[in-house]
Amino acid sequence: MKVVALAGGVGGAKLADGLAQILAPDDFTVVVNTADDFEHLGLHISPDLDTVVYTLAGLSNDDTGWGRAGETWRFLDTLRGLGGPTWFQLGDRDLALHHERTRRLAAGERLSAVTGDLGRRMCVKATVLPMTDDRVRTMVLTVDDELAFQRYFVERHCEPPVRGFRFEGIEAARPADGVLEALAAADAIVLCPSNPWVSLDPILAVPGLRPALGGKVVIGVSPIIGGQALKGPAAKMARELGIEPSAGAIAEHYRGVLTGLVIDELDVADVPRVAAAGIRGMTAQTVMKSRADRRRLANDVLEFARQLAG
Amino acid sequence: MKVVALAGGVGGAKLADGLAQILAPDDFTVVVNTADDFEHLGLHISPDLDTVVYTLAGLSNDDTGWGRAGETWRFLDTLRGLGGPTWFQLGDRDLALHHERTRRLAAGERLSAVTGDLGRRMCVKATVLPMTDDRVRTMVLTVDDELAFQRYFVERHCEPPVRGFRFEGIEAARPADGVLEALAAADAIVLCPSNPWVSLDPILAVPGLRPALGGKVVIGVSPIIGGQALKGPAAKMARELGIEPSAGAIAEHYRGVLTGLVIDELDVADVPRVAAAGIRGMTAQTVMKSRADRRRLANDVLEFARQLAG
Repeated sequence: MKVVALAGGVGGAKLADGLAQILAPDDFTVVVNTADDFEHLGLHISPDLDTVVYTLAGLSNDDTGWGRAGETWRFLDTLRGLGGPTWFQLGDRDLALHHERTRRLAAGERLSAVTGDLGRRMCVKATVLPMTDDRVRTMVLTVDDELAFQRYFVERHCEPPVRGFRFEGIEAARPADGVLEALAAADAIVLCPSNPWVSLDPILAVPGLRPALGGKVVIGVSPIIGGQALKGPAAKMARELGIEPSAGAIAEHYRGVLTGLVIDELDVADVPRVAAAGIRGMTAQTVMKSRADRRRLANDVLEFARQLAG
Repeated sequence: MKVVALAGGVGGAKLADGLAQILAPDDFTVVVNTADDFEHLGLHISPDLDTVVYTLAGLSNDDTGWGRAGETWRFLDTLRGLGGPTWFQLGDRDLALHHERTRRLAAGERLSAVTGDLGRRMCVKATVLPMTDDRVRTMVLTVDDELAFQRYFVERHCEPPVRGFRFEGIEAARPADGVLEALAAADAIVLCPSNPWVSLDPILAVPGLRPALGGKVVIGVSPIIGGQALKGPAAKMARELGIEPSAGAIAEHYRGVLTGLVIDELDVADVPRVAAAGIRGMTAQTVMKSRADRRRLANDVLEFARQLAG
């Protein structure tokens, strides 16, 4: 069974790791959001790509949800003493990945090629692809002004109420090398439990990508459990956009995209609302605390996909 | 007594530290070679400025002669694992200085302003100035080809025999803000025991700088002791340029520039040759193993300057 997962950061990376535990490496591709990439200290930083790669490589810091396990902070501590900008956390080891990516991009390589090669050097077996090799940047429309995503997310701690999002550069973006090929070959496509508005919508908005899902089994996993997001601002964003956060609302957001939606057992009452959106619902334990949890949920998702394909 | 020291890397930094131990901070300026600055991983690296600043800040690694004491290497180790370029050593803390310098230069600040501010943050009391805020780059003419200085020095370990040097950009370079003012106000100018060809000659070649030494007491300290350089390729370079390395040859190199030259007691036989170059010679213990040695030699240099001024 060939599978493509669309993923943002932490939640997406965890389910991707579950799928990677089950599927043959050649049968599994993760397409990752790059709309929250940004430039900082002259470096090209790809937060979601890094979270996915570190997680699949077994190098992620499961306490923080970002960055590397066993990280050290000599660089950042010293930069602070020199009066430099420290609002974005850069660990000593993490910094090497940003530097090497930036160096290779500056030498003319594509982000997809660099991501693949650096991933292999970290012993990632599955294929990890950026959604695009072109520059796309999420701009957050807040009640006051428009903020670049990382300024909103890290520097402002997601505090300013949002009114909407704009993916700068999306019209001219092309799917990265390998993305359309992987989707065409896929038996199932999994929308990981990532933020719908700022992690998965940018991927789906890359021209040519959404049509490539047509006629496929497309399974989502709700990132909202009992009205809450396990991590990140998805529930807060929903409310600010006038949407009561729930698994049912997730189904409605993906109407016309999803074939099936996995929702948490806590949200069993939302099953009729999922069905009303024209999507098959399934309940499962969707909280992933351990690596075994990731594998179990991935197994449920793949079983559901087989049923829907059948 | 107001003093300006002209310095390259390790030897120059040591004598500068000796002078800083004696002189009032407002009376002491170090003008540092920047012709071996280079760009690496998108960073502006100033090896000689950093060696002087770290040494004056008491942060230098006296075992290696470059970089910081107590440095860690997580960044470089990780970069190596990712297949990145590791020929130039970048410690985790050192990297922060390169990044902050680069960020501020990119924001339009001058190297002299950035150097001063970052030095103060590291509690350097004396004034440390780059020789110029303009771009000058030492090119090493070897028997085979022309090499950028750091490629010759670090990557090729000074192995290719040299035929000469070219300071790219020197014609258009102006002394950095404060350099000519400090020289005009100086009672004595000290040419530290740095490499004549690649550390001090670039400083002296900045247009306007050498005339500013006219009529001043200018004291050199020979970097050649018993025919050897304590550190670095000065003696090897001399031989390749057809010059037998000796304190006397140093005097001849600086004919017309120096009023006096301090040579090591080992080289007392060279005193007549120094005199023949029109330079007053003085012998001293010039090897600086401890901080006290630096202070003692600085004291001898200042005493000699007072005699020559008298």
